[in-house]
Amino acid sequence: ILGLDSSIIMQSDVFMYSGHLDTFSDPLVDCRTCRARWRADHLKEQKCPGCGSTDLTDPRPFNLMMKTTIGPIEDPSAVAYLRPETAQGIFVNFKHIVDSMNPKLPFGVAQIGKSFRNEITPRHFIFRVREFEQMELEFFVRPGDDESWHDYWVKERMAWWVRQGLELDRLTAFHQPKEELSHYSKATVDLLYQFPHGLEELEGIANRTDFDLGSHSKDQDELNLTANVKKNAHAVQRLAIKDLNDGSWIVPYVIEPSAGVERGVFAVLSAAYTKEQLDNGEERVVLKLKPHIAPVKVAVIPLLKNHDGLVEYAQKVVQMLKRQNLGWVVLECAGSIGKAYRRHDEIGTPFCVTVDFATIGEDAANGAKDTVTVRWRDTLKQERLSLDELCQFVKTQLEESAL
Amino acid sequence: ILGLDSSIIMQSDVFMYSGHLDTFSDPLVDCRTCRARWRADHLKEQKCPGCGSTDLTDPRPFNLMMKTTIGPIEDPSAVAYLRPETAQGIFVNFKHIVDSMNPKLPFGVAQIGKSFRNEITPRHFIFRVREFEQMELEFFVRPGDDESWHDYWVKERMAWWVRQGLELDRLTAFHQPKEELSHYSKATVDLLYQFPHGLEELEGIANRTDFDLGSHSKDQDELNLTANVKKNAHAVQRLAIKDLNDGSWIVPYVIEPSAGVERGVFAVLSAAYTKEQLDNGEERVVLKLKPHIAPVKVAVIPLLKNHDGLVEYAQKVVQMLKRQNLGWVVLECAGSIGKAYRRHDEIGTPFCVTVDFATIGEDAANGAKDTVTVRWRDTLKQERLSLDELCQFVKTQLEESAL
Repeated sequence: ILGLDSSIIMQSDVFMYSGHLDTFSDPLVDCRTCRARWRADHLKEQKCPGCGSTDLTDPRPFNLMMKTTIGPIEDPSAVAYLRPETAQGIFVNFKHIVDSMNPKLPFGVAQIGKSFRNEITPRHFIFRVREFEQMELEFFVRPGDDESWHDYWVKERMAWWVRQGLELDRLTAFHQPKEELSHYSKATVDLLYQFPHGLEELEGIANRTDFDLGSHSKDQDELNLTANVKKNAHAVQRLAIKDLNDGSWIVPYVIEPSAGVERGVFAVLSAAYTKEQLDNGEERVVLKLKPHIAPVKVAVIPLLKNHDGLVEYAQKVVQMLKRQNLGWVVLECAGSIGKAYRRHDEIGTPFCVTVDFATIGEDAANGAKDTVTVRWRDTLKQERLSLDELCQFVKTQLEESAL
Repeated sequence: ILGLDSSIIMQSDVFMYSGHLDTFSDPLVDCRTCRARWRADHLKEQKCPGCGSTDLTDPRPFNLMMKTTIGPIEDPSAVAYLRPETAQGIFVNFKHIVDSMNPKLPFGVAQIGKSFRNEITPRHFIFRVREFEQMELEFFVRPGDDESWHDYWVKERMAWWVRQGLELDRLTAFHQPKEELSHYSKATVDLLYQFPHGLEELEGIANRTDFDLGSHSKDQDELNLTANVKKNAHAVQRLAIKDLNDGSWIVPYVIEPSAGVERGVFAVLSAAYTKEQLDNGEERVVLKLKPHIAPVKVAVIPLLKNHDGLVEYAQKVVQMLKRQNLGWVVLECAGSIGKAYRRHDEIGTPFCVTVDFATIGEDAANGAKDTVTVRWRDTLKQERLSLDELCQFVKTQLEESAL
């Protein structure tokens, strides 16, 4: 699987051939009373949610691509679009990729980057936004192998989300009915997640067939394309790969896992956010992020923040952990130790390391010199470890967390 | 130094307060004969480069920001801009950053991401493009400390470019004369590089003072701002930091190293690209990238590509190196070994590792079993190493390359 970073602004032709100019739209209605505009399929009743009027227009298609003009002359030839998906950048660069990297089928090209959709009604926190970070993989396979690879990627992606901390019983693989498929798709499986606001799409895994490469290809007559590819007289490249066995040109089929990063973050946060009742009756907020995705991996806390010996030792532990390249390690000197623990519970820091008087050799009854206490965020279990053991412990925990 | 990923599309107000709406423009002239448009300061003579006509308009300012509209209603209130620099995203998020991360002065916020400038005449390969990847650091300091931090970052950034492989004698630190400074700057040092097409800006390091934070702040009267900050009645936040000593509000000064990634890549490629005359009269093209930025770190090449024992052993070496997480390691089985070397010279692979008959224990005269030959790209020197030595060698070379 190769990586790519393609451009955000693309010329109109790309989106004519991809079908986005014709079909990438949502149904829009106008309120004739207050002039607000709404997405027809999001209206719960035939009333304007703004002013309550029932005087609404019939729905008409509203294209979701964001438009700009390039160059100093604003005429129709200067109109260009912000990509509504990163995928088209992979398709139009297909020949460059094949020529320079010489991949063999099956292979993938993956990209993470901003995409833009002019949503009529953005909503639900970071769930539906106009500018978002998309992660897409176009996995190119031989026609005929597409269905089994489609199954493979559905399983793989489901397992990946579970490894990031999502509960399997809040995830559903939904096979889209034929009549709801996008214009490019032969079959699409949506991974749905039980978000706080309802069961909604987290990722789509589509079998895009040869639709995109075929649409952007010249000499379509010479390629054995399926029927839904449009005739395209203007494309300049043949986006195909040569079969080394018989010299024929293959237009690969594409399996595409496509996910929004913000939706993923939202799902992971909502799975991790927990309120617990402690034995003393207090409430504890804990963000139970898996260690490998927690922003802060370790907080090192001196038992007393004004004691030079403890603070200096804690700084030494921070430096030691930083040298291991395990992620973000912080020295936490604000407030009491109890408040420091609570704060790190709330931001999901999996391990708090306390430097106490035993650590600096002034309290042998409670532990050996040069040992520290590790506190687990979720279980509140505490354990005394030497510094070597601490490094190994954090490393192992992070590695196992990602499995 | 904290990292940030802020949005690309920002509302007009941001660019009104930042001064971009008023001043971020290039001088544009029209050819009255062929209607082409040109950047006035790029014209070598007062003639249209398209048709040769001398009937040109007077220059007028052309704003370089790319425009779009957000939401379903295309009216002036829906106009928004693609950011022309990532910096404004850092300034308008300043309060969030301070509230959540609690940093102390001096501190930095760094960002890498796409920026957009509607250049009248993009040119010189990837030097001047309309969509580009920018890397910026806003380093916030106490007023009064700004000049010494400015000097610090100029030296630091110059040294950084040299570590990436640029020749010190093709780099110049150019202090912009007062009359050429941007509207926000008290002093700017351009790092100029001798590109193939001439001496041009690679990076700018500006002292932006309190201009930006002040411009986006409300209650400007209560803040001790310098004179060039505009009155702003509509901002909703005070972008300042509290002095823990006396409780006063400080609007920090900002030192900003700002570089374009494409220009950096162009400079590094042009520094690395070399043609050499070999002893046998042939020409060798070598991309002398420093190992830590070479895309492929190691190519493992079986002496004969059709010999199962050699190929299998080479695969084993690739797997072993991959487990070290040293970067991209490839198995190279295409063409003769001489051609494989040449191809990797051209793409800058610093080390080629050859698996030969000695490696698999069938040529004791030329080397011990389980040893391989490492070939250095630049010197063509070859050395026999055990597999353990090979891992350590590559690791050390990559670490030292980045210093």
